[in-house]
Amino acid sequence: MTVKVKVAFDGTDFCGSQVQPDRRTVFGEFQKALQTVVSDADNIKACSRLDSGVHAKCFWFSFDTEKQLDLHKFPLSLNANLPHDIRVIESCKAEEGFHARYSAKGKEYTYYIKNNHIDDPFTSKYYYRCPQKLDADAMNEAAQYFVGTHDFRSFMARWSKIIDCHRTVYSAQVTRQDDMIIFKVCADGYLYNMVRIMVGTLIWAGTGRIRPQQVEEIINACHRSKAGPTVPPEGLFLTDVLY
Amino acid sequence: MTVKVKVAFDGTDFCGSQVQPDRRTVFGEFQKALQTVVSDADNIKACSRLDSGVHAKCFWFSFDTEKQLDLHKFPLSLNANLPHDIRVIESCKAEEGFHARYSAKGKEYTYYIKNNHIDDPFTSKYYYRCPQKLDADAMNEAAQYFVGTHDFRSFMARWSKIIDCHRTVYSAQVTRQDDMIIFKVCADGYLYNMVRIMVGTLIWAGTGRIRPQQVEEIINACHRSKAGPTVPPEGLFLTDVLY
Repeated sequence: MTVKVKVAFDGTDFCGSQVQPDRRTVFGEFQKALQTVVSDADNIKACSRLDSGVHAKCFWFSFDTEKQLDLHKFPLSLNANLPHDIRVIESCKAEEGFHARYSAKGKEYTYYIKNNHIDDPFTSKYYYRCPQKLDADAMNEAAQYFVGTHDFRSFMARWSKIIDCHRTVYSAQVTRQDDMIIFKVCADGYLYNMVRIMVGTLIWAGTGRIRPQQVEEIINACHRSKAGPTVPPEGLFLTDVLY
Repeated sequence: MTVKVKVAFDGTDFCGSQVQPDRRTVFGEFQKALQTVVSDADNIKACSRLDSGVHAKCFWFSFDTEKQLDLHKFPLSLNANLPHDIRVIESCKAEEGFHARYSAKGKEYTYYIKNNHIDDPFTSKYYYRCPQKLDADAMNEAAQYFVGTHDFRSFMARWSKIIDCHRTVYSAQVTRQDDMIIFKVCADGYLYNMVRIMVGTLIWAGTGRIRPQQVEEIINACHRSKAGPTVPPEGLFLTDVLY
């Protein structure tokens, strides 16, 4: 049977999600725990690569096994073998041929900006703090220019060698809840650092450094130098995967 | 002038709020930072003693100084000298004779119980997890018996030597938000471990081990052995101080 497993993790102490020798990664920790509980687990796949420090409220793995697992008890057994910063939320049987990464039709990311000059002592690992006053409405207006199919080269890390930079953004939204500015974006795929550069650019719109409409010019320029800075990873969460 | 300072802190890595030699305490850290910023700060008082591991979203200090402080900038200077698990939220001038502890007319505590068999990797330091299904309505009904002036001896740590155990509970309420059960209690004062023993007893009502009405008998028994267990400190927050 092919099994899907949904996990949440605090990315603070992980060197990203992919296996890297001698580094603590989400994939490495998950694989170790899974192989303890399901000895023949094979073809283990993750839904995405995440950068160091990025968090996930919804991250899927898939794997194959010949065993008949009790999928109700399985999350508890797996959690008993996982470190506390990764928790299995649920697991279920997947259709044959399911692949956590290639079967995904889209992913939603959420970025949290605390718009305050004082940190919160309980949640400071889970947002980027911006002390300058931000206009969430202007940021939301700016975010609408991301929607659609575009060449997002301006929003890609300089070192990336990807050639086809077209991606389709299904939706993008900026809202304010008290002193927290929340950016949600859903797309069919992402370039390296794409969401973090989008947020850096939206902050420009939020402080009035650019007009919202200028986001269109920044996209069309197809050059990293035109977009805003790459904001830190700790405000970023993978929050949904569309299958 | 007498100054009031409101702080929030994550109690995880503190040995309580009071000064203790060679221990990291909230008072000790605050005092050190304050004396760096306000060299003549004197008569420093805290609103409450908190046990090790208890958190605060609202905790007040008061002190006297001969200096004229810019109270708008003062929180920022103080925060620059404090560790990240204590943050100054605001400060203001207090009336003459104000004392952070003796001027308080009451305090509100909030206790968080996560009613789930799976932990949340982001907030696990800030609740007590109870996997058995809890009936929040029964717990709320039980909590109403706390309201009023009672001898709360049944809800006091065995080792405490306090003689007058009468306290007045102004309000008590249990609500559920998804898988989180939230107990809020406001009283003129508290005995050692009082809120944590109240919560242990409310959990008995939530699982059906006692009927809500039995809380009245437990109070009247005036003996620690009749009440529920002392739940752990990490779910407890001081959330308001009434002046």
